[in-house]
Amino acid sequence: MLNGEEQALASELPHKYPPFVESITKRKLKLSEVLCEAFTIGWYGEKNTKRVVQVMCYYVDGTINFYMRPIEGIMATVDLDLMKIVGYHDRQMIPVAKGDGVEYVESKQGPLYDNRIKGMTILQQDGPSFTLDGNNVRWANWDFHLGFDMRVGPVISLASIFDHDKNKYRSVLYKGYVSELFVPYQDLSEEWWFRTFLDAGEFGFGICAVPLQPSRDCPKNAKYFDGYYTSRDGTPVKIPNVFCIFERYSGDVMWRHTEAALPGDDIAVSLSGILAVKGSKYTHQDQIKEEVYGTLVAENTIAVRHNHFLTFHLDLDIDGPANSLTKTHLKTVRVANGTFPRRSYWTAVHETAKTESDAKMTFNSGDTEVTIVNPNKRTNMGHHVGYRLVPGPVAAPLLLGDDYEQIRGAFSNYHVWATPYNRSEKWAGGDFVDQAHGDDTLAAWTMKNRDIVNKDIVVWHTLGVHHVPVQEDYPIMPTLSGSFELKPTNFFDYNPVLKVKPLSSVDWVNCSAKSS
Amino acid sequence: MLNGEEQALASELPHKYPPFVESITKRKLKLSEVLCEAFTIGWYGEKNTKRVVQVMCYYVDGTINFYMRPIEGIMATVDLDLMKIVGYHDRQMIPVAKGDGVEYVESKQGPLYDNRIKGMTILQQDGPSFTLDGNNVRWANWDFHLGFDMRVGPVISLASIFDHDKNKYRSVLYKGYVSELFVPYQDLSEEWWFRTFLDAGEFGFGICAVPLQPSRDCPKNAKYFDGYYTSRDGTPVKIPNVFCIFERYSGDVMWRHTEAALPGDDIAVSLSGILAVKGSKYTHQDQIKEEVYGTLVAENTIAVRHNHFLTFHLDLDIDGPANSLTKTHLKTVRVANGTFPRRSYWTAVHETAKTESDAKMTFNSGDTEVTIVNPNKRTNMGHHVGYRLVPGPVAAPLLLGDDYEQIRGAFSNYHVWATPYNRSEKWAGGDFVDQAHGDDTLAAWTMKNRDIVNKDIVVWHTLGVHHVPVQEDYPIMPTLSGSFELKPTNFFDYNPVLKVKPLSSVDWVNCSAKSS
Repeated sequence: MLNGEEQALASELPHKYPPFVESITKRKLKLSEVLCEAFTIGWYGEKNTKRVVQVMCYYVDGTINFYMRPIEGIMATVDLDLMKIVGYHDRQMIPVAKGDGVEYVESKQGPLYDNRIKGMTILQQDGPSFTLDGNNVRWANWDFHLGFDMRVGPVISLASIFDHDKNKYRSVLYKGYVSELFVPYQDLSEEWWFRTFLDAGEFGFGICAVPLQPSRDCPKNAKYFDGYYTSRDGTPVKIPNVFCIFERYSGDVMWRHTEAALPGDDIAVSLSGILAVKGSKYTHQDQIKEEVYGTLVAENTIAVRHNHFLTFHLDLDIDGPANSLTKTHLKTVRVANGTFPRRSYWTAVHETAKTESDAKMTFNSGDTEVTIVNPNKRTNMGHHVGYRLVPGPVAAPLLLGDDYEQIRGAFSNYHVWATPYNRSEKWAGGDFVDQAHGDDTLAAWTMKNRDIVNKDIVVWHTLGVHHVPVQEDYPIMPTLSGSFELKPTNFFDYNPVLKVKPLSSVDWVNCSAKSS
Repeated sequence: MLNGEEQALASELPHKYPPFVESITKRKLKLSEVLCEAFTIGWYGEKNTKRVVQVMCYYVDGTINFYMRPIEGIMATVDLDLMKIVGYHDRQMIPVAKGDGVEYVESKQGPLYDNRIKGMTILQQDGPSFTLDGNNVRWANWDFHLGFDMRVGPVISLASIFDHDKNKYRSVLYKGYVSELFVPYQDLSEEWWFRTFLDAGEFGFGICAVPLQPSRDCPKNAKYFDGYYTSRDGTPVKIPNVFCIFERYSGDVMWRHTEAALPGDDIAVSLSGILAVKGSKYTHQDQIKEEVYGTLVAENTIAVRHNHFLTFHLDLDIDGPANSLTKTHLKTVRVANGTFPRRSYWTAVHETAKTESDAKMTFNSGDTEVTIVNPNKRTNMGHHVGYRLVPGPVAAPLLLGDDYEQIRGAFSNYHVWATPYNRSEKWAGGDFVDQAHGDDTLAAWTMKNRDIVNKDIVVWHTLGVHHVPVQEDYPIMPTLSGSFELKPTNFFDYNPVLKVKPLSSVDWVNCSAKSS
């Protein structure tokens, strides 16, 4: 992985590099207002890969949202081991994007809109319903550990659910986390073509995390966790308040006439932040007659098309470690010369995936359900106990399979994969991601086509979105969420929330306000 | 539509019908504990359809959840115009399903689980942020009318959003509602094969609505609306508290560093309630060697496989009535002999659907975006203003297209359709649904292949789920939700929630409890 210190050092090199100083002067920009950042390149077929990054620069000039002010045409290649510029070009002069209204810091935004929303407080007079014991969380029937990892951020492990009828906790998930991301940008110009990021392994979800702001990022009833990672020299770095946990009203009844909590695990990711934009000569859509690889979102500002693929590592242990993956195919049956005037129906055909090849699939057709079962445990009616993977948004890769970046991001080729547990197979893009040659990805591992029946298996699920930027994404995009669900499927003998006691009905009155 | 009164009359007929009384006696059941219900049949190719229903019976015997106790093998055919039994059969004796734990009324459930959830109250000391003026709702930047219809339930109309920069409301949705449902069951046995319901037009979403229970169905900060429908003789019937409206904490930040409301319209439906089950001789999965068309969910109880398709009528008026439907195709481009070692990228090709045929599509491939644009209005950058239809769960029909029920439910054939506005085209399954012969459905209307460019168009979106029942759905299924989103897409010049003022931070303390 890149570490923060070497990124910072690399980003400072251009300022002392005479050809770069000349480029800035030529553009009539102030060097003191230039800020640079390091970008990974990725393997593109060369025999030996080096730890090199491309350093690209922005014109701050008073704005915190400097990403909206790229200085196009200039690129410095830095070898991180030598920590020096080993390549440089100044290809063309393009105006620095000058779209208005890029500020997002409150004090700099000018007049805000009249506030049409009144205050709302979630009052938990008896405190939260969860209990924390270190990083262990108990809530409703769930018990799980929430860990922090510098590469992938949140890690949920040892999640189990209390079964009232069996009077014990039953395991569901040994460990789950976002194993890798693949974010290929779709711009083929000289300073852009290599931008196909594997964010977790290159920059680190954990390293990039910042402290949550109470009352801004999380509501007042939230509790916080700190996170730690190791810096370049091995010393621990603390990120205070890196996670928050809170209860909210879900907005829907659990079943008609009682509200309660679904014993399924809904795992969501949200994308927010700032689009990658490039400077452009264009100021109106009508001027554009060529491929610009994106959307004109503001004056001289093109937001580039890209994808987000996130592959989750889900080491499910449904009622114990030995599990199988079952596909339920919904198949149309034509009725020939039936007794009744009905000509067709559909049936459900269950298939146990015997090997890694059997498990690979996409959800595109929509007629296959995926359930992880424990073939050694059965419900009272004789079904193998299981949890179903209910997908949310999925997307198929649009790049060719033999393209280098797709070889590195090949874990996005399927929406579902399954492997036998192997402690060295943690990162779907391999240990070395941008530097890797595609021989250490989930796609490569599964070529062994190992047996996955009644074993400690890991299921991998790829969630994806295509992103064609729009003006609403500028200057900072609204949160885009995606999720999938792990849903009990013949795991319990009957609806497990049926007997949850409704909450007593109490009004809290005569409260007094305390500003904070 | 069926009305409640004729359904009640038809359901009482068997009790006075000697062959039926004999069937009950033969089964050693008490007639006083038998309760019957009317089911629509649907057109299956006959020349003339009559208003006939099948009456099927259940054995109450002390339970309110009588749907779990079907009396199989018996069926009475009732002509609603004659209001008499015109056909009857008693085909076979099957044990009445006797699965345990069918009760869902709190007082009958036996000991409830220990309560692991503490109370939570949403406190809005300054009241809700929405204002109601009759059925008109204003919230945040939105203004819309919430109406009640006896056929389809909730109808949202005249939804517009305030644009701070233009200092005016801009229209988004003229009218939106669930136009029709199609729920084909997949059991070919004699008493089941015809069960392929078009719920809105047959039974009425509005007619079937029941009053919401404050604090159970909706939180304490909810406000309620009544609904009215016309009974068989034309007198109005009031359903008190048929809708509730409330604010909740969404659980996610709108964008990093400010919480606010997304100016998109998220339209959700939730399915709960009771599965259609049939009695069976089986008590364990291992006994089953034949097609039983469903899942053994309890002793002698098979829950039958089925689908839910819901087609929404969305008369969008994006910044005015004249709109077009645009498909954005994400297309892979192979790079031959490129300057850089990248072999492919993807681009976005916009296509305006010229006719109804052009508009029809499924979301299965995942590489086409659908946006409704106003070709007469542009953003500052020159994009046509629009809203994108972002699908949630979709499903393709699994029945053959020439099967009678699929002809009636042909509106489920595509996930997207568009028609020019026509006041007679309100119900996607036609006015007469079960009695119709497939010549008055959305599929039939669009055969005219009318022009839909820059017109007052209606977009129809079909949301669908396949339902393979599981034991957790018994005796009453947990809520299953699906939704889609209408998302501003180059409608605003920039992120419209950027300048929303953060709420002031107030703690409410020293509250006292008031039981209610």
